Order: sequence, then C-alpha cells, then structure tokens
Amino acid sequence: MDLWVEERNQDTHAVRFRVERVLFRGESEFQTVEIVETAAHGRMLLNDGLIMLTERDEFVYHEMIAHVPLLAHPGPRRVLVIGGGDGGTVRECLKHRDVEHVRLVEIDGLVVDACREHILRTAACLDDPRVQVTIADGVAFVAETAERYDVVLVDSTDPIGPAQPLFGREFYGNVRRVLTDQGIVVSQCENPWYEGPAQRALLDILGEVFPVVSLYNYYNLTYPGGMWSFSFASKGPRPDGELNPPRVEALGELQWWTPAIQRAAFALPAFQRRALGLET
Amino acid sequence: MDLWVEERNQDTHAVRFRVERVLFRGESEFQTVEIVETAAHGRMLLNDGLIMLTERDEFVYHEMIAHVPLLAHPGPRRVLVIGGGDGGTVRECLKHRDVEHVRLVEIDGLVVDACREHILRTAACLDDPRVQVTIADGVAFVAETAERYDVVLVDSTDPIGPAQPLFGREFYGNVRRVLTDQGIVVSQCENPWYEGPAQRALLDILGEVFPVVSLYNYYNLTYPGGMWSFSFASKGPRPDGELNPPRVEALGELQWWTPAIQRAAFALPAFQRRALGLET
Repeated sequence: MDLWVEERNQDTHAVRFRVERVLFRGESEFQTVEIVETAAHGRMLLNDGLIMLTERDEFVYHEMIAHVPLLAHPGPRRVLVIGGGDGGTVRECLKHRDVEHVRLVEIDGLVVDACREHILRTAACLDDPRVQVTIADGVAFVAETAERYDVVLVDSTDPIGPAQPLFGREFYGNVRRVLTDQGIVVSQCENPWYEGPAQRALLDILGEVFPVVSLYNYYNLTYPGGMWSFSFASKGPRPDGELNPPRVEALGELQWWTPAIQRAAFALPAFQRRALGLET
Repeated sequence: MDLWVEERNQDTHAVRFRVERVLFRGESEFQTVEIVETAAHGRMLLNDGLIMLTERDEFVYHEMIAHVPLLAHPGPRRVLVIGGGDGGTVRECLKHRDVEHVRLVEIDGLVVDACREHILRTAACLDDPRVQVTIADGVAFVAETAERYDVVLVDSTDPIGPAQPLFGREFYGNVRRVLTDQGIVVSQCENPWYEGPAQRALLDILGEVFPVVSLYNYYNLTYPGGMWSFSFASKGPRPDGELNPPRVEALGELQWWTPAIQRAAFALPAFQRRALGLET
C-alpha cells in the first residue's frame, strides 16, 4: 500500500509525507486527533488533518517559541503555556534552570493523552514535578486566574475553530494582566507567504496592549511554505539585548537555536516588512 | 480536471501545486523542460520534473545568490553566471550599477528558449546590452576561457546529471583561475535537512581552493523543506563586512534581501553547524 498523508494549503499547494502506519485516531469535542508513523520524519501529530509536529523537525518550533523570550527575560521563574498539549514547548522551558513552574493549559485533553501514549519525545516532560497540566480553555484561564507569570507562550493552532479567540484583543488584555512587570508573551503567528494580513492584525492588537512588539521567523521542515512566524510582545524586555552566557550554557546542546539565530530570526524579508507596515 | 504537479524528495516527502495548464514541454539532449501555469504560484519551470522556480517566490533565490556576493565584493564589474538559464540571477546582477558585463553560460539552450517564451519575469533581462548568453558547458567554459570575472555564480541544478561536475574539485580550481584578485564564487548548495553530507563535501572542496569559505541559508516557498543553502568562497572578501549604502540604495526595491538579511543568512541552525563540523 502506498500510504501518504497530505496537508493542503488554500487548495493550491500541499505537502505530503509517506506513512508507515496509523498509530492513533480519536475524536474529541474540539477536533480529530491523529498520530501516524511516517517513513522518514518520525511520528506526526495532526489536528483536524493539519500537521502539528513531526519528531523529525519539532525542535525548530519548540526551541524558537521558548528560548527567544526566556533568554530575553531578565529572570523567568514561572511560565504559562497555552495550547501545546504535545509537551514540546514545556520541554524546552524546563531546560532553563531558573524556571520553577510551568503550567500547560490545553483545551483538548485528547491531544495530551494521545501524545503521552505515542510521542514521548515531546510529552515525557509533562511528568516533571515543575509542570502542572490543566485541561481547560486558555482564554477563560487568563481571564480568571489570580496567578502571575513571567512569560506566556501561546502555542496555538491556526486562528480557526477553538484557537480563534487566541488571536483577539480581549485575550491579550488578559495576558497583560497575568504577566509580571517584565513579562513577555510569544505567540504562534502564521505564515508570511499566505497570511500577511493575519500577521499584521495580530501585531496591531499587540501594539494596543504592549509597549514592545516585534515578530520573528523560523523555518519548519513540515509546514507548507516552511517559513513561519512568532509574535513577541513585552512590558519592557527587548528581544535584541545581550544574552546571559551562563544561562545559554545551561541549556545544553540544542538542535536549532544559537545566539546568532536569536538575532537573525528578527531579520524579516523585505516583502514581509512591507506587508507589516515596517520600513525596509 | 484536478491537475497537480508533484515533486518527491527521497520518495518520503513531496510538495504539490495546483496547475491550470501546461504551457511548454520539450526534450533537450540533457533533460525534459516543462513550464506550467499554476493556480496560485504563477508560472513554474521544471527540469526533469524538479521544480526550478515559480514566479511567486523566485525572487528569494535570485536576490540571495546575487546580492550577497556582489555587495560583499568591493566593486564588481564582470559577473559570470553558470547555469541559471531562466535569467533570474542575471536580472538581479543587472541591478548593480557598477556591473558592466554579465555572461550567462547555460548548458541547455532549451531552458533559455522556453523561459524567453513563457517566463519573461526572469528572462526578459537576457536582451540587456550588458548581457551575453552563451549556450555551452560551464565546466568546459571555465577550464578554457581567458576571460576574468569578479564574481562567479553557480546557479545549478542538483548534483545529479549534467550538474554533477559543478560540485567537483577540478571545477573550483578553474573558477579560482578565472576570478580576479578579490573574486567571489557563490554556488547553489542543496538542503541542510536532507543533504548535509553534500554540503560538507562542497565546503571541503572550497576550503582546499579558497582562503575564505562560508555557507548561508535562504527559504524558498516551493522547494521541498523550504530551507536551502548557498556556499560562499572568495580570494579575500568576507560576507560580513560593512555594506556600502549608495550601492545598496541603487538596487531599488527588493522583495527578500535587506541589509539585516545579509547578516542573518549566515546564522546557521545548530544541527546544520554540527553537520558541517563547525562549532555551535
């Protein structure tokens, strides 16, 4: 059997991966969750048929969502991850020795359960004593919690379905409320090739809420188009400051992030800068 | 009819684009040359079924192969392009006012003819009076010519078939011979995700021939895996020097390249640095 999984992008472009076998398929109240063993890209998680991660390249996304803000912050101790039920983002946060507590708020318990069963590379860390997993709506959580965090990471799916409110003004007002004085929020911010207006809309919202707003890119192997972005917003810290060498050293051997990558990620291509209303 | 063109990578990964119609199909002594009109990515050139360019994203490759070395060189006047029969690389070279002469040496006249007929966005520049088009084997050309060039751009296909000698030691010895004192050669250098050993092999060869050797990345929308590399080698100029503002200004509005991108492109991910034997 010639078995392939395909993700279409706007019905004009697609990526495909050869699949050895289907490991898991389940329906939650939010989405279909599937995990397959690919021929050359390790295990792959799909939500509603969209590729969330593969074991082959998940380190790009997870290192870049976590290390950029955690190293930009002067001393992060408490991190809130919204979404990210696979655990990869939490795993990278735990590499920071000063981090004492990571709370994962994932809306769909089925994602967490499926990854705990089939993708230990990302989910094994969820048993770490510094981690608390909460199955709840992240939008409601930030609206209601009395807890405070130094860094919030919005590790969301695309702004359709359950993730839509995560791209809104009200949500980021609440994120500001839960952030400490030097707090930083980094969010999954779509693809500059196909989603320029969505990127600009999110930056505009962040600009109403935070004094420091920026955007940086990374390059997944398995997302359509490869190039993808994170937004960066903070109450003060900038992403281009000096890095603390002992804190970098403590991270150990990484696969993607380097100090040079931290700076380079904020160098946006000319067409993207124009689409965002920035000078080239 | 649901018409798609697909490029497979190692038979485990593929990219696909919806096609409206086939504009050209021809066989040369070297390869099959095809041009299709895609639904959302403009016209696409394929050699032996491999995607060479689309109108939607060709600027990434062409700006990055040309502007990085031409701006690193103190005053490039003569440029030799080997391969690149579509004309996109030549077009970018001509944006540099000091460039007086660009010679394109393309082995396959059918590529040039097909692009002159169907992809004017890249090929129209080939009628510029500063351009000379030579249909010949680039390997033989650099072995035999008495001409000298400030910059050589190896705009080749993958190291299989006619392009294979373009990845060899003898070829680069001849490139050194045709380069002037401050000469630079930049070459298409494959994909770090799938072709790490090929990248290291080419850098090793360049290191035997040139005192300055480096590698930089760019991010095509339409190549499998997105991230791709160029090698940079020179008789002296480094890629990280100060840029000349009037020369940058003279380039006009670009789509990808910026001064920050010039620096950022040399920040390689940790896994790629290790594969190349560089310190992380």
